[in-house]
Amino acid sequence: MSSLPIENNKQLLDRVSKILEKGSQIEIRNLVHSLYPAETAHILESLGPEQRAKIWEVIPPSVMGEILIEVNVEVGSGLLKITDRKDLIAACENMGSDNMVDLLHVLPEPLLSQVIETIGAQNRSRFEKDLRYGEHTAGGLMSRDVLTVRSDVTLDVVARYLRKRGKIPAGTESLIVVDRTEQFQGVLPLSQFLASDPHSKVADVMDNRGIAVIYSMPSRDVVRLFEQRKLLAMPVVADDGKVIGRIAIDDIVGAIREEADHSLMGMAGLTEEHDMFAPVVTSAKRRAVWLGINLLTAFLAAWVIDLFEDTIQQIVALAVLMPIVASMGGIAGSQTLTLVIRGLALQQVSSGNTMSLLLKEVSVGLVNGLVWAVVVAGVAGFWFHDMHLGLLLGSAMLINLVCAALSGVTIPVVLDRLGIDPALAGGVLLTTVTDVVGFMAFLGLATLFLL
Amino acid sequence: MSSLPIENNKQLLDRVSKILEKGSQIEIRNLVHSLYPAETAHILESLGPEQRAKIWEVIPPSVMGEILIEVNVEVGSGLLKITDRKDLIAACENMGSDNMVDLLHVLPEPLLSQVIETIGAQNRSRFEKDLRYGEHTAGGLMSRDVLTVRSDVTLDVVARYLRKRGKIPAGTESLIVVDRTEQFQGVLPLSQFLASDPHSKVADVMDNRGIAVIYSMPSRDVVRLFEQRKLLAMPVVADDGKVIGRIAIDDIVGAIREEADHSLMGMAGLTEEHDMFAPVVTSAKRRAVWLGINLLTAFLAAWVIDLFEDTIQQIVALAVLMPIVASMGGIAGSQTLTLVIRGLALQQVSSGNTMSLLLKEVSVGLVNGLVWAVVVAGVAGFWFHDMHLGLLLGSAMLINLVCAALSGVTIPVVLDRLGIDPALAGGVLLTTVTDVVGFMAFLGLATLFLL
Repeated sequence: MSSLPIENNKQLLDRVSKILEKGSQIEIRNLVHSLYPAETAHILESLGPEQRAKIWEVIPPSVMGEILIEVNVEVGSGLLKITDRKDLIAACENMGSDNMVDLLHVLPEPLLSQVIETIGAQNRSRFEKDLRYGEHTAGGLMSRDVLTVRSDVTLDVVARYLRKRGKIPAGTESLIVVDRTEQFQGVLPLSQFLASDPHSKVADVMDNRGIAVIYSMPSRDVVRLFEQRKLLAMPVVADDGKVIGRIAIDDIVGAIREEADHSLMGMAGLTEEHDMFAPVVTSAKRRAVWLGINLLTAFLAAWVIDLFEDTIQQIVALAVLMPIVASMGGIAGSQTLTLVIRGLALQQVSSGNTMSLLLKEVSVGLVNGLVWAVVVAGVAGFWFHDMHLGLLLGSAMLINLVCAALSGVTIPVVLDRLGIDPALAGGVLLTTVTDVVGFMAFLGLATLFLL
Repeated sequence: MSSLPIENNKQLLDRVSKILEKGSQIEIRNLVHSLYPAETAHILESLGPEQRAKIWEVIPPSVMGEILIEVNVEVGSGLLKITDRKDLIAACENMGSDNMVDLLHVLPEPLLSQVIETIGAQNRSRFEKDLRYGEHTAGGLMSRDVLTVRSDVTLDVVARYLRKRGKIPAGTESLIVVDRTEQFQGVLPLSQFLASDPHSKVADVMDNRGIAVIYSMPSRDVVRLFEQRKLLAMPVVADDGKVIGRIAIDDIVGAIREEADHSLMGMAGLTEEHDMFAPVVTSAKRRAVWLGINLLTAFLAAWVIDLFEDTIQQIVALAVLMPIVASMGGIAGSQTLTLVIRGLALQQVSSGNTMSLLLKEVSVGLVNGLVWAVVVAGVAGFWFHDMHLGLLLGSAMLINLVCAALSGVTIPVVLDRLGIDPALAGGVLLTTVTDVVGFMAFLGLATLFLL
């Protein structure tokens, strides 16, 4: 029985920081030994490289593997570099088969071959097979640690078999039922098993509405099935219908977290696999690409403004007001964009409802465009004592808000059809449109009507 | 045994759209009856109000409750408005106790009292008690449907008790072990139970490292515990240590999804509880607030530009180039902001590492500022045949990128300490800083050195 209250991650992190400051290796060691692998992983991701190394050097090889799976890819490869090769091989040997495969996915090539060498020929062929499943498929998510029972035996026989076996995978809440040829038949929830008469046949008490998925199903779809059907586990079958593995809910929890992080980080041109405390040059390089792309679009906008140099020269107030048009377009557009990107990620936007979503968003843009056009027209007209100028500003904003809504829907939908991640590329394209349209509309209208 | 392959949500949505177009009520009814509540909820969220009503009218009251829990708050209240009161009360009576409480949380006040009236006095006091637990605490997440066993009995006795009881809650993978006074002792995984000798005592085979949490623990912390310790379920205890409920992993999956959506949507001034197909006026009103706040900051930026009206009048190129400075600052700042917001949400940023994160981000800003300053200086100098102008542009950009990094870290950290959601308010504050600093630096330097 554990003591209450339990620390949250922030409290844990603060405690670790204090211990690291004092620097007693024994205290660090005691601390690390009291943590779960994922807690240690959390700590490692939250620390800079030097402190990270201090923690890593006291971690026993037997838990290294599990921690390496939990940290993000970049932190993991940093740790691999400072890990003794022997320790690493020991770490691999200590792991369950599916965790092992996850780890092998993370290892860089020369090391990967070396580890596969050492784990022995009989295991090797199996791991090599597992490595062939795509990481983002049911096969990549599954564990091969499956307990199957035959449908034609009695519960009593199953009970004896389980006791004889001695060890059932932790977290098992149901047994997978197969026929003589290992074809999937259904599942036998342990809750059902325990509540039933021992003389009943498995076939009579099992749940035959259970589903199995094929190894090649994209993990995104697997995640939805778990979420929507409140599953705790699901068998995975091969092309021939034979049960080859089992996906458990804890694998799914990790996948949901990754998926969500991916959208959030992607919209800022980042990924969830990067180290928050990566070396400055590494981080700078990575972000430079994103800034560079944005710079191109900023120069495009500047070029549009330059087309109207003469107009601005005559009415400087245009230069003062033009960022308002671009900024409002950008904000309105990013609201629509975010809504659609989330809809696409949750598979709530499809060809059937794109048109009505577009209509709705454009209408919203129109309503808000009108409302705020009146406001900016008033403020600008009053500010510069020129109602014509105000009117122009309002009209340009209205045009830009409608365009923002149009592109906020069409850009992500088109990117998605082209197989490009809308979370990653959508924002840049959208601001390009809202900047260009915003400046063009405002300065163009001014050139036409004010000069 | 179910047929393969299984439809994903997009395919399902397309199929539903087609059936709705043709409009045969029987087909709609057959379709809806074949779906899981969460699948129906997904469909309802993905459709416009009219089609939504078409689906809702064929849904039997017995599953209405479960669907209402699954849809987001706004879609739910829309559905409640078109639901017959009698159906709704029938729906409530059909639900398990914890689902019932979730539904009661969603019901608007007059209806809530009415439902509580009808469910009978003996249940009422219990529900009223449950409703007192905060929705975002362990108490709000838990179900009261708990199976406890005493630690001093043998497994054989437990087995007979379970069979006599007949029904074990679906998805149970462990039993909660308590002593004579209902104090939490540990958990007995069913996998362990089945693999052990029936004559052993519960106390000897149970897992006593299991943890229980207090009902008042914030759900954010509960979610972390499940994720990091790979839990499938966890007992919840009252202040006196008595077991009062159990949180299962499927409640956690929902909470993770909500939390992640909250950050993503919050950054665009939206929330995860809004209806994608809300009426135009409702959506427009909601987003108007966000646009209005942004308009204020845009006017602030315009006011800054206006301070330099004379300078711009003399050198129009400044007006052409100034959006570049603001835009690059905004992009760089939002990268840092997103990183920190995610770090705060995952509790990876705390007082212990804020300073080193700040140093790192400012250094990254400095490096990228220098690199891109050289590029923009060259391009602008060449474009306007004026190296001084280019140099100024580069310097202003460097200044703005460093400020962007500074505010990208400090704004969310300060907001978090003040108890304000950084995902919601961070973006507006940040762009205010990068716009003002960007225009001020560029136009200010130009006034000093070019005139």
